[in-house]
Amino acid sequence: MSTNNTTPHSAMLLISCPDQVGIVAAITDFLYQHNGNIIDLEQHVGVREKHFFMRIEWNLQGFSLSVGELKKQFGSLIAERFNMDWQLSLADEIPRMALFVSKHSHCLYDILARYQAGEWNVRIPVIISNHPDLESAAKNLGIDFHVFPMTKQNKKAQEHAQLTLLQDYGVDFIVLARYMQILTGQFIAHYPNKIINIHHSFLPAFPGAKPYHSAYERGVKVIGATSHYVTAQLDAGPIIAQDVIHVRHTDAVDDLVRKGRDIEKLVLARAIWHHLRHKIVVCKNRTVVFS
Amino acid sequence: MSTNNTTPHSAMLLISCPDQVGIVAAITDFLYQHNGNIIDLEQHVGVREKHFFMRIEWNLQGFSLSVGELKKQFGSLIAERFNMDWQLSLADEIPRMALFVSKHSHCLYDILARYQAGEWNVRIPVIISNHPDLESAAKNLGIDFHVFPMTKQNKKAQEHAQLTLLQDYGVDFIVLARYMQILTGQFIAHYPNKIINIHHSFLPAFPGAKPYHSAYERGVKVIGATSHYVTAQLDAGPIIAQDVIHVRHTDAVDDLVRKGRDIEKLVLARAIWHHLRHKIVVCKNRTVVFS
Amino acid sequence: MSTNNTTPHSAMLLISCPDQVGIVAAITDFLYQHNGNIIDLEQHVGVREKHFFMRIEWNLQGFSLSVGELKKQFGSLIAERFNMDWQLSLADEIPRMALFVSKHSHCLYDILARYQAGEWNVRIPVIISNHPDLESAAKNLGIDFHVFPMTKQNKKAQEHAQLTLLQDYGVDFIVLARYMQILTGQFIAHYPNKIINIHHSFLPAFPGAKPYHSAYERGVKVIGATSHYVTAQLDAGPIIAQDVIHVRHTDAVDDLVRKGRDIEKLVLARAIWHHLRHKIVVCKNRTVVFS
Amino acid sequence: MSTNNTTPHSAMLLISCPDQVGIVAAITDFLYQHNGNIIDLEQHVGVREKHFFMRIEWNLQGFSLSVGELKKQFGSLIAERFNMDWQLSLADEIPRMALFVSKHSHCLYDILARYQAGEWNVRIPVIISNHPDLESAAKNLGIDFHVFPMTKQNKKAQEHAQLTLLQDYGVDFIVLARYMQILTGQFIAHYPNKIINIHHSFLPAFPGAKPYHSAYERGVKVIGATSHYVTAQLDAGPIIAQDVIHVRHTDAVDDLVRKGRDIEKLVLARAIWHHLRHKIVVCKNRTVVFS
Repeated sequence: MSTNNTTPHSAMLLISCPDQVGIVAAITDFLYQHNGNIIDLEQHVGVREKHFFMRIEWNLQGFSLSVGELKKQFGSLIAERFNMDWQLSLADEIPRMALFVSKHSHCLYDILARYQAGEWNVRIPVIISNHPDLESAAKNLGIDFHVFPMTKQNKKAQEHAQLTLLQDYGVDFIVLARYMQILTGQFIAHYPNKIINIHHSFLPAFPGAKPYHSAYERGVKVIGATSHYVTAQLDAGPIIAQDVIHVRHTDAVDDLVRKGRDIEKLVLARAIWHHLRHKIVVCKNRTVVFS
Repeated sequence: MSTNNTTPHSAMLLISCPDQVGIVAAITDFLYQHNGNIIDLEQHVGVREKHFFMRIEWNLQGFSLSVGELKKQFGSLIAERFNMDWQLSLADEIPRMALFVSKHSHCLYDILARYQAGEWNVRIPVIISNHPDLESAAKNLGIDFHVFPMTKQNKKAQEHAQLTLLQDYGVDFIVLARYMQILTGQFIAHYPNKIINIHHSFLPAFPGAKPYHSAYERGVKVIGATSHYVTAQLDAGPIIAQDVIHVRHTDAVDDLVRKGRDIEKLVLARAIWHHLRHKIVVCKNRTVVFS
Repeated sequence: MSTNNTTPHSAMLLISCPDQVGIVAAITDFLYQHNGNIIDLEQHVGVREKHFFMRIEWNLQGFSLSVGELKKQFGSLIAERFNMDWQLSLADEIPRMALFVSKHSHCLYDILARYQAGEWNVRIPVIISNHPDLESAAKNLGIDFHVFPMTKQNKKAQEHAQLTLLQDYGVDFIVLARYMQILTGQFIAHYPNKIINIHHSFLPAFPGAKPYHSAYERGVKVIGATSHYVTAQLDAGPIIAQDVIHVRHTDAVDDLVRKGRDIEKLVLARAIWHHLRHKIVVCKNRTVVFS
Repeated sequence: MSTNNTTPHSAMLLISCPDQVGIVAAITDFLYQHNGNIIDLEQHVGVREKHFFMRIEWNLQGFSLSVGELKKQFGSLIAERFNMDWQLSLADEIPRMALFVSKHSHCLYDILARYQAGEWNVRIPVIISNHPDLESAAKNLGIDFHVFPMTKQNKKAQEHAQLTLLQDYGVDFIVLARYMQILTGQFIAHYPNKIINIHHSFLPAFPGAKPYHSAYERGVKVIGATSHYVTAQLDAGPIIAQDVIHVRHTDAVDDLVRKGRDIEKLVLARAIWHHLRHKIVVCKNRTVVFS
């Protein structure tokens, strides 16, 4: 039995490795030997890179291995043999997400509305901002809100304090919900492929600041938004989700900003959804996003 | 000078009438005679109906007529001559919108987030529901929240009480943000083309209850949402906005519901935006939505 | 090694059966035992129906079974055990597609342009029409063109003659490229899930004739097209692909027809592509379309 | 009476000028004085540039001025007064379009299919290519086909010969239907805002050669196409139309190319349609495209 939604008590493996004969058979046979009923399996081989990607989800009810034994046996019997990068997740574990915001409220409000409605399997223990403006939204939901004012001088120290705070809150991944600060490489290195950003253009067009102004100047007929994992290179990390909306000459910059907000919200929410559902594998600055 | 957004101190005329020679010239000459600088003009003639539609917006600064004189003179000199339906609006007037909700929060939260962020030129004095569930969202923003439990027996009386309340709050128009009650014809008659509903399908496909279940059963590859003015005939009123999203066989009914919510929010917000900007003329169950 | 395009010398299995533990392991192990390198595997379990669907493609080079042995052994060892519906296809086999047309040229021209450019792995031996209008397009490409004028009186006889002709040409499946005749149930029974139609609306909205006129009357803000397998019930067969385009009040019926043509072409071409790539399984009037 | 399609015997004015009070009144009054029934009027003021744009179409039946008188009187009475750029077009005049192609057939075939079906009000007297490959498609429709092989050495001379040929054929505007040569500034200067190109990316992302390869490398989740007027700066001219399609990790470069072709065809056809309908005004490298 299966659904697109994670089954409680299911386990998921995300796997990538060089392609060769027999990988799928080895994995599915391993699960079958331990009475694991496969709920969902998606597999892909990148033709240029000759690289194998797979997501497999199975029911832990009736499965004959404990999680500890599973990790040990899968690691030694399968993963080593095929030289795999792999990640095991359990549907019962609720990931802990930190939000970073500045003054723009639309992405934050959208995320909190989904949170409040129970749309996602996630916990939000803390919201961090460089401005106090959005504190009340956090407070209404009982989420801690910490302000870290940022200057060129204090950036290093503040980031260090943020990292300590994130650790204290047991944060698994970070969402930059229109956080108007550039993170340093040192900060990013603590959360590789675990910081999700929303950029307000269809990258690689219009990276950096003021993309809607640039879009207006260029006279484009579509504007868009891009959600990506943050890497040390600005707006150049692996893209998770993108979408666009048509615009016309009648749209002034303010209209682009207004229409763009709706796309930003949607695209960021989709990226978070995929991340939470353990659907994403990153390989060489590209993402595999299973369906 | 012009923007897609309403200029403060501008006036707007929405006009529809049988088509004939000279309408545009008569209107623009009238405004020119009184020193009205046209900010925006859009005109359309329906080919089948031979019906003329126009939206014109001009600056009241420097305009030589008072609003009272304008109404009187335009009415007697122009509107009567061409047998016009017409509606004058002033950008300085802030419309008062009532929200009707039940238990689904996504459309309400989306509207309140836009309201809180100041995205719209609107006041929300009151939210009405047949359930108490969403009260706290209203309270957080200082909006009055009234619960009217509905049964077959009390419907007439409750609607009557609602109408009184709406009048007390000076409500100009109503938005049904996933209100799970069918309004009676008597109620609707008090707000002709002033009640905006969101239906969770691309009408005319799947009217009535449980459209996502029907969509799943039929195996469609797109689902959608429709915002329309409410008329006495269920889900058959003039359509203001529609949009769709692609779905696949991997989407269970729950996934359709989840994906659909995002489209519902967007489509309802667009319809409200057009209504607030005085962009919509209704003619024979179809809408003209100026850009 | 893998691509989204079929590899020459690859084999594909489309499978559906009641869900149970061990299906994937049994299939992939069977292939592994005979040295079959899996190129692509996609699997889905319908949650409501508890039904298992799978598409698997593997390389025949190095595979230790002949096609005959494969069919025999897979049938007896795997398919019977799990009570499977299954279909084996070989990338080396070029399917033979017949086109049915009337007077509208846009879908036909689009298909022939793709055919001429070698976009699809298909042969088109014959085009059938109830009118002679489009003959020259067929002739330019050396495709036989047969005219079967249709009346109420001769329909049965003409369909019988068409079936004979299709058999003579060794036709595997049929595409109704805006064929303006309704096929009888007897005809359809000869090609179950092998007749692809394009309907010029987003079904289930506006089935039957003149959907663009109905769309105009209803005042919808999106129009669409639907490609589906033909069943005995008009415009109610399993949907393969759908898409829509936004329209406005400025679009007269002629504009809907014009804009709709482009969507019809695209949607029909996508459906044919999926069919040719053996990506579609039909189950209870719904399609599973693998990616 | 009006339609989105040009009425036979109608005239169109495209106007742009610095904004000021009274322009619309002056124009519509001028037409009214000479008994011109306005069919369609769209007006826009660019807020940043304080620039006025307008398209107006009226019926010449009953209009009291000849075309010659119209030009003279409108020029001296209205256009000079408001310092207008203006262009008069007559629906009865059929524009003459030249196509430039290389080896890719999809855009050419799509255009010829529309031409053959009578979708557009246009004449195609000549197709020019740097390769002989697509000659037969032209010949089938009785369109002259000229091959100009291009090398670095002969480019200047060949372009000169092309210009002579275009003049001989009385060509009004040029469509580059995947013409794989870069035109020189001298050539372009002969057809300012009269050469329409299709670029196979959503500009400004991925200008230049091999955009699909670049899109694959960057891992984008949408690909697109852009139609624009050609200027001396490569892929930087005013954009007329853009559209995109979603892609996934399963799409190899070949799939991007395949999916992209369909978007290229659509976007180019839309741009040609707008140009033929005299809907486009260019101002400072941006287009106003009336609806």
